This record gives sequence, C-alpha cells and structure tokens, in this order.
Amino acid sequence: MSGTVYLVGAGPGAVDLLTLRAARLLGEAEVVFHDALVPEAILALAPKAERIAVGKRSGRHSTAQRFINKRLADAAGKHRIVVRLKGGDPLLFGRAQEEIAYLRSRGIAVEIVPGITAALAASADLGVSLTQRGLARSVAFVTPRVGADAAPSSWIQAVVACDTTALYMGAGDAHAIAAALMAAGKPASTPVALVENASLPNARTLYGTLQQLPALAERTAGGPTLILMGEVYRDAVRESRSTVRKSAAL
Amino acid sequence: MSGTVYLVGAGPGAVDLLTLRAARLLGEAEVVFHDALVPEAILALAPKAERIAVGKRSGRHSTAQRFINKRLADAAGKHRIVVRLKGGDPLLFGRAQEEIAYLRSRGIAVEIVPGITAALAASADLGVSLTQRGLARSVAFVTPRVGADAAPSSWIQAVVACDTTALYMGAGDAHAIAAALMAAGKPASTPVALVENASLPNARTLYGTLQQLPALAERTAGGPTLILMGEVYRDAVRESRSTVRKSAAL
Repeated sequence: MSGTVYLVGAGPGAVDLLTLRAARLLGEAEVVFHDALVPEAILALAPKAERIAVGKRSGRHSTAQRFINKRLADAAGKHRIVVRLKGGDPLLFGRAQEEIAYLRSRGIAVEIVPGITAALAASADLGVSLTQRGLARSVAFVTPRVGADAAPSSWIQAVVACDTTALYMGAGDAHAIAAALMAAGKPASTPVALVENASLPNARTLYGTLQQLPALAERTAGGPTLILMGEVYRDAVRESRSTVRKSAAL
Repeated sequence: MSGTVYLVGAGPGAVDLLTLRAARLLGEAEVVFHDALVPEAILALAPKAERIAVGKRSGRHSTAQRFINKRLADAAGKHRIVVRLKGGDPLLFGRAQEEIAYLRSRGIAVEIVPGITAALAASADLGVSLTQRGLARSVAFVTPRVGADAAPSSWIQAVVACDTTALYMGAGDAHAIAAALMAAGKPASTPVALVENASLPNARTLYGTLQQLPALAERTAGGPTLILMGEVYRDAVRESRSTVRKSAAL
C-alpha cells in the first residue's frame, strides 16, 4: 500500500487556531511526525496515532533531514494517513521542500494543509493590521541571518524596501539585527513590536523602536518571539509609552 | 449591553480551511457582517445569525466604510457575539484598521481571529514552499497599484528586494505590473505562478515567466487570482513546459 503524507500546519500554538482540515486529519492519522515545539494539546487531537518527534526549530539536536525523509516514506508504505505536523504554516519557513521533493520522487502522494503563520497570530494579539491604507501596502516575512559567516544579506534589503516587516526567529540575534538594519538605512526610530508566545495564554507584547530592539528582546522570557516593525505600529508604541508614564505616576 | 465584535478571517474559500475558533464563533454568532466574496458554504456555518453583506474586495459598489463602522457598533449594542467575516486574514489586505479603531474609540471590545491568507493556500495548491534553503529567505506580500494616479511605488521596490513575492489583487493589471517590474530591474525570466480560486475545487494553476505574465493572466477565468514569483518556482515552470511539450507530441 501507499498512503498519503499530509504536511500539516499546526498554527501558532493555540489549539483552536488549527484549521478544521488539520483537526480532522489528526483525528484520522495513524502516525504523526511532529516538530518538538508543537504543543501537547494539539498532539492530543491525534489519539489513534503513534507520535514521533523530529527536528527542532532552532536546528539544535535536529534529526537529520535525510533520516526524516526516509521515515516519512516508510510510514506511507504502512499507513493510509501519515501526518507531518509543522509549527505555523508548512510552506513559510517550514523547510518543507526537501520532504515534498523526496516523497514525490518516490511516487508518494503529498498534500499540504496550510496553517496560521506566526505573523498573523501576533498581529491578531496586537490588534494592528500589517497593511493599512495610505501607510503600508507591502509586508516582508524574513528570517534574518547575522554573523561573520552570513551570506550576502537579501533579508536586509527586504526589510528596508517593505513598509511592514515580520522577522521570524530573530529575537536571539536582536543586537546584530538592529545594527545591520540601521547601518543599511532603516531609521533608528522605526516603531517595533515584539510578540512572545503569540496566540497562547502567556502571550506578551513589547513596544519600542528599532534602536531599542536589543533591550526589548532581553525582556522576553525565552519563548518563540516574533519581531514586527513599521509605521503601522507608531500609534501602539506611543500609547504604550503613555501607559508606562501613567503607571509610573501612580 | 455591549457585545464583542470578532473580526474573523474566512480563509481562502475552502470551508475546512477555517480555523476551529472561526467555526465556533460563526456557530454562536447572532449577526454576521460579511464581504460579498465569502462563499455560501462558509456562511452556512452561522445558522442562527442574521447575515449582512457589506463591501466588496474590488472596491466597486462597496458600502461606505463609515456606514459599516456604525452598523458594527450598533450590532454590538444589541448582540453578545457579532462576527465581521473577511476573506483570507483580517490583518493582511483586509482593511480592518478603520473598523478596529472606530470600535475601540467607542469602548467596544474587538477580537481578531486570524485566517489562512491566499498566498499560503495557493502555495499549498502548488506544493511549492515560499521559502527554501539557499534560495529564498524573504517573502513579500504586496498589493500592486499601477496607472497614472499611482502613488510612489513601494510595492515595486518590495518585489525587487525580496526573494519570493505574492501579489494580491493584481491579475487585472498584469500588463502594467509586468512592465513596471521589468523596468525596475526584475528579470523578464523570473519564474511566475498564477493560482486562480486557491483551495477550491475549481483551482487552476498557470506557470511561466514575468514576461509572460500578461498572457497568463488573460487565460484566467475571472476568479480571485494570486500572482507568485521567484526562483522557488523555476523547477515547476520547467516541468510544466515539458508537460505541455509531451501533450503536444501525442
């Protein structure tokens, strides 16, 4: 037999931000391969499935991609419904292409189920639209790469060119990111919002400017953190300052 | 009484790409204000609700925004759960900020429920990741504006700077878009994929190059069409050509 491998977006973390299709497939799945960061409450939607943890977002201790590919193919030889569950959306920073290409080269059916990506969940938490009439009609989604071994940096040009930016997996490099962007001409006063644990009960929001980005990142508690920047956050940054001032005055 | 207004993403069209949260809120809603393009099958998830069609994506015949704001506020005065349903995600090209600002200024609670945006649904249909290791680490989401009265065009810089681009609501202006991008230095050979009616049974995919974009757009049947471009589509464009050649040879 040859089953189908479903690459399924687990969304940002909240169980009820899964799609109806993802929830149904988890309920039917005989085996679920999942990123280490997918919450237990989401895995609980797959009561019949054998669970296999693979990979880790940071890259540390990650199971070798070739080994994951092989295990997915083997599972499709034994099961009708194989779910490969990835945080957020599988096709945006999900490293899915190698799995898709490998499975298709073996004649195994692959289907993709999109998921809510972190930038949309973080924006919902903030209540601020990524695009706004007269203010922002282009949004960049990037993963920054910094340090001496970084390739020529298209992500920097992307941030400079776009009205709004969502930086994924960048909070740990906040100092280098802020320095690189300011050196490339992004104004130090660019409004910035950080959202840690988007969509979850312990979600946390921090506002400031690009210059303050390293200090803001230091205040996060180590959860997955999205960095947002652009003029659309100017009002929220101003309001957060006035709130801080009011609290201090009490 | 003052109810809550939920700005809910209806997703790309397929009913089961709604989130669990969106489906639950529709089931509980007493009134649903919806874009004209939201499919009947999704509205059917709100059996108890009064349905009110407002706005239209193209801007034509759109109910004035001020009037929509007022009606949402009035509804929150009468109902516990008011759903404002928007195609895709409410905070990405959803024109949500005016509604959020108006309702908050009146002390009305607003919550946002994210939705699957068209670019992610279209990518799932294509089976091609927007980001790929060594090839694409920045993705631009833009709405192009062309013509003599267009403002200075940040969307063009965004497309030129980012590795992958998703252009929303651009198929009708394909000729002007291709011309503007090539004039700005985007190579005529840039691989392009068009997805019409993403996620729906009548979804359709067309591949080519930036230079061929106007001809590709002419082959669409008038449904909502997303334009994707970047090196990540090169293999798919090549395969589609070889398929066409094989069909012609039969």
